[in-house]
Amino acid sequence: MTGVKHMKWWGWGVDGVAFHYEDKPRFAPFVLEKVGLDITTPGRQPLQFDELTVPASQLTEDLRGQLREIVGEDQVVTEDLERVVHAKGKSVRDLVRIRAGKLGRVPDVVVYPGSHEEVQSLVKFAVDNDLVLIPFGGGSNIAGSLEAPLNEQRTIISVDLGRLDQVLSLDDDAGLATIQAGAQGPDLEEQLNRRGWTLGHFPDSFTHSTLGGWVATRSSGMQSDKYGDIADITRGLRMATPEGTLELRPLPSTSTGPSVREMVLGSEGRLGIITEVTVQVHRVPEVREIQAYFFPSFAAGIRAMHDIARSEAQVTVSRVSDDRETAFSFATQKQSKGMSKYVTAGLMKFLEARGWDIDQLAMSFIGFEGSKSHVTRQKAMVKALIAPHGGFGVGQGPGALYDQKKFDTPYIRDFLLDRGAAADVSETAAPWSKLKPLYDGVIAAAEKAMAEVEREGYIMCHLSHSYHSGACLYFTFAIADDSPDVLQRYDVLKRAVQEAFIAGGGTLSHHHAVGVEHSPWMEADISPVGVQMISSLFNGVDPKQNLNPGKVVHTGQPGISVLSDEQ
Amino acid sequence: MTGVKHMKWWGWGVDGVAFHYEDKPRFAPFVLEKVGLDITTPGRQPLQFDELTVPASQLTEDLRGQLREIVGEDQVVTEDLERVVHAKGKSVRDLVRIRAGKLGRVPDVVVYPGSHEEVQSLVKFAVDNDLVLIPFGGGSNIAGSLEAPLNEQRTIISVDLGRLDQVLSLDDDAGLATIQAGAQGPDLEEQLNRRGWTLGHFPDSFTHSTLGGWVATRSSGMQSDKYGDIADITRGLRMATPEGTLELRPLPSTSTGPSVREMVLGSEGRLGIITEVTVQVHRVPEVREIQAYFFPSFAAGIRAMHDIARSEAQVTVSRVSDDRETAFSFATQKQSKGMSKYVTAGLMKFLEARGWDIDQLAMSFIGFEGSKSHVTRQKAMVKALIAPHGGFGVGQGPGALYDQKKFDTPYIRDFLLDRGAAADVSETAAPWSKLKPLYDGVIAAAEKAMAEVEREGYIMCHLSHSYHSGACLYFTFAIADDSPDVLQRYDVLKRAVQEAFIAGGGTLSHHHAVGVEHSPWMEADISPVGVQMISSLFNGVDPKQNLNPGKVVHTGQPGISVLSDEQ
Repeated sequence: MTGVKHMKWWGWGVDGVAFHYEDKPRFAPFVLEKVGLDITTPGRQPLQFDELTVPASQLTEDLRGQLREIVGEDQVVTEDLERVVHAKGKSVRDLVRIRAGKLGRVPDVVVYPGSHEEVQSLVKFAVDNDLVLIPFGGGSNIAGSLEAPLNEQRTIISVDLGRLDQVLSLDDDAGLATIQAGAQGPDLEEQLNRRGWTLGHFPDSFTHSTLGGWVATRSSGMQSDKYGDIADITRGLRMATPEGTLELRPLPSTSTGPSVREMVLGSEGRLGIITEVTVQVHRVPEVREIQAYFFPSFAAGIRAMHDIARSEAQVTVSRVSDDRETAFSFATQKQSKGMSKYVTAGLMKFLEARGWDIDQLAMSFIGFEGSKSHVTRQKAMVKALIAPHGGFGVGQGPGALYDQKKFDTPYIRDFLLDRGAAADVSETAAPWSKLKPLYDGVIAAAEKAMAEVEREGYIMCHLSHSYHSGACLYFTFAIADDSPDVLQRYDVLKRAVQEAFIAGGGTLSHHHAVGVEHSPWMEADISPVGVQMISSLFNGVDPKQNLNPGKVVHTGQPGISVLSDEQ
Repeated sequence: MTGVKHMKWWGWGVDGVAFHYEDKPRFAPFVLEKVGLDITTPGRQPLQFDELTVPASQLTEDLRGQLREIVGEDQVVTEDLERVVHAKGKSVRDLVRIRAGKLGRVPDVVVYPGSHEEVQSLVKFAVDNDLVLIPFGGGSNIAGSLEAPLNEQRTIISVDLGRLDQVLSLDDDAGLATIQAGAQGPDLEEQLNRRGWTLGHFPDSFTHSTLGGWVATRSSGMQSDKYGDIADITRGLRMATPEGTLELRPLPSTSTGPSVREMVLGSEGRLGIITEVTVQVHRVPEVREIQAYFFPSFAAGIRAMHDIARSEAQVTVSRVSDDRETAFSFATQKQSKGMSKYVTAGLMKFLEARGWDIDQLAMSFIGFEGSKSHVTRQKAMVKALIAPHGGFGVGQGPGALYDQKKFDTPYIRDFLLDRGAAADVSETAAPWSKLKPLYDGVIAAAEKAMAEVEREGYIMCHLSHSYHSGACLYFTFAIADDSPDVLQRYDVLKRAVQEAFIAGGGTLSHHHAVGVEHSPWMEADISPVGVQMISSLFNGVDPKQNLNPGKVVHTGQPGISVLSDEQ
């Protein structure tokens, strides 16, 4: 009907694609050793959709009729499956709850507008009738930005931007493309590639997230060291707001007061619905390579990434994993393929002869793009920069493999959930001087939390983006717990990680946004006055809170985590 | 007493420094030819200070006593000279009015706080007593950001940040310096240089502007192509607000909702008073060079700058003047020095032999920094990139001269004012594809305006900053008019230029801010909804408009220019 495809209602990605361990001989032993979980036993099956109890839609026939007037008859959908798919994002909290049939406050209707004007009409309609609008892009959010407040009494409309997926125009001279907000990563990149251009924005969610979602959550991608975060890439936009259309013309830079562009970035639907974005695009480069390197420790790898960031080298990717994530990466390799061939007895002997502690091994990926001569020169510069830190190159093989597989990682989460482990990610950014102490603080806090909840668990990390003054640290953590109230213990771990970010001088989130998962610590991150400034903006634009209420700014008791509310 | 030095009350810069034409043999003939003005006649003397009628201070003894409690007895100043110096910035409108004794609404008192805590107390005090606070840095603003509304009845306090001028801390590892907001360019740069670092921020106002002022107005500097605009450089800050202190910890990047950092940038005192800024700093480079190039036309120069911006070259300065500004530059050269030696009959013959129209000649400066090998390579890349556009290098001489003299240009304005010409600058930024048509539109609009007001005038331009998707065009314009109501005609010209910016797809201001000079066109630039969003923020933080009222957001009739109010 609407033509818009969605992810599985109960998990990541598309039907028929899943993680398999059988061809990865080191994986099952790794999980058994690290968290005591035997994953070779058959996984639990999630509920079937028809076993769910889906609350009835509150949409009145009158409102339905008016919505049909706005977007057309076929684009107003109240089927249970559609409503459930639009009820949440894909955080582990979302997945655990939805698999247990705890659906929370499900939207009453899903609409699929076909133009900016229809979106603008929906916003006016919602405000005039005191309804709630929640914009929906690819549905990949993991910060709770998509779920309605549990106690929301008003009719909730999920506005799916899926039909707005076109590159509308391309300014070949300036390198600016105007693209509809509902365009998903692969689709928009293909539309640009066809004309010789690339956006260069590749978040891990790339295959199932949208341009509008990236802007609304301040996304960052694998190659943002070169192309910039979405905040840098976004030069202009259109947003439907209660007062009409916000139009920001594409500008390279401006000094016209507080930046409205930077108010829309990260606004998570609280100011309106983004319908079009004008982004800067680049010519597809002649050469693109991701090289792998080994470092004797994560600390050495961090120092090397810092030296690269402040050098004259211009890399496109700077990533280094801690020893824990390096071990995990080795464990997920297929036999005799990819990087496993490097992890031979021979290599180990070689490294031990160099005095390396193999358990401390840190794997790094560094990306290069541009003309052949540029890439050659950059690689030589990087080689010289990393040598003092003990780093050395192991070729393109592992990087190419990582590059192909990087978007498949979320499937592992569903596999583990089926087998009794809850895993998710949290990331931060901090000045270079604070990274290593912050990392140590997070690891210690996570281990303390696991001990506290008496569950085995695992936490690992990589540095994912570098800036002149600091970098992003990206943590993945899991606890082995197959009880129905796993989230109570998972939340203890999540909270420990977030609080260690703040204590270590880092931010709550580098690119996953705030939603409701991180709002309890907003005052700690940007100070109470900063939160008041954001609230002033939200309250001025949307005084009745019709637009995705409850996100970004924590509306309950300060310091009381909404994470404790399991539904 | 306070130890804080100020610029001349009636003009730019320090006493004893002025522009002289006598050693520049081509200057007087140039001005005579272009605007029919004989500058060799003695200039008019501005009023003496004691000829001014300075409105009495409204400060009550009670308020004076309370202010002394906050900042100390010596730091509360009501002398006329101090109050007049703090009444305005240094736009040509400011200078014309102040030289004519039209002082407008002069602040009732100037205070010099010595700490963040004192500034915070001042903000609370002003809100509690319904007073008006206007923060003052170096006083170099040219957008009307410093003047009080003419009809302001409340007591006005100018808060001079001049005593807050220290580099408080320097994180040598991360490259982050925390600096007090009142530090002026040369002073803070010297404090950093002493320790091997540079901020790399060199606006034309550098010698008389402050870090806090740069942040409050979204400044940009000559080397921002490398170091970024002040918005990129600013990583954290402290601001005293009515609700207490806003604390933004230094972060390389974050996704915690709408950016509060980007709300403070460009806020021109309307949200509070910035007291400390944490900026990213860089190691002083091994080599720093500014090379000069000639292009056969401004259009060719623009295309060359675009090719450099989208190339793998990393230049620190990219600047090209139109034929009008190139001619002006030649006319301001001393005999036998700097670039005049290139403008010899021999060179002209050479260029004519290449088929160049000498009248179209466009001079360019391109900056390079870094290691020797890096600079050598970058220069070779630039040479290859500009050749297809007819560009060729003329060495370091002119660039070195420009580099030394670039901060002296504002003195010419006072010289011309004394002799019956009003000159000022306006700058915009737009996508590359729109630059040349925008430029043509501005020139045509300015010439039409000059014809309309029946005055001879001159307008010239340079491209001053390059970005991936566009660039800044910086216009200087003058009209020959020595009548007392010169501003009525100057405003026609200024308005024509600003409206041509908007019509051509450019922004109102790239780095001079909004103040009251540009607020009439804010809705045209960022759309009415954008203005409403900024207003929501201002009204939420400062509901009684105690903080620098009337700036950024135009509070009168939409579309009615405040420029028509001469006082």
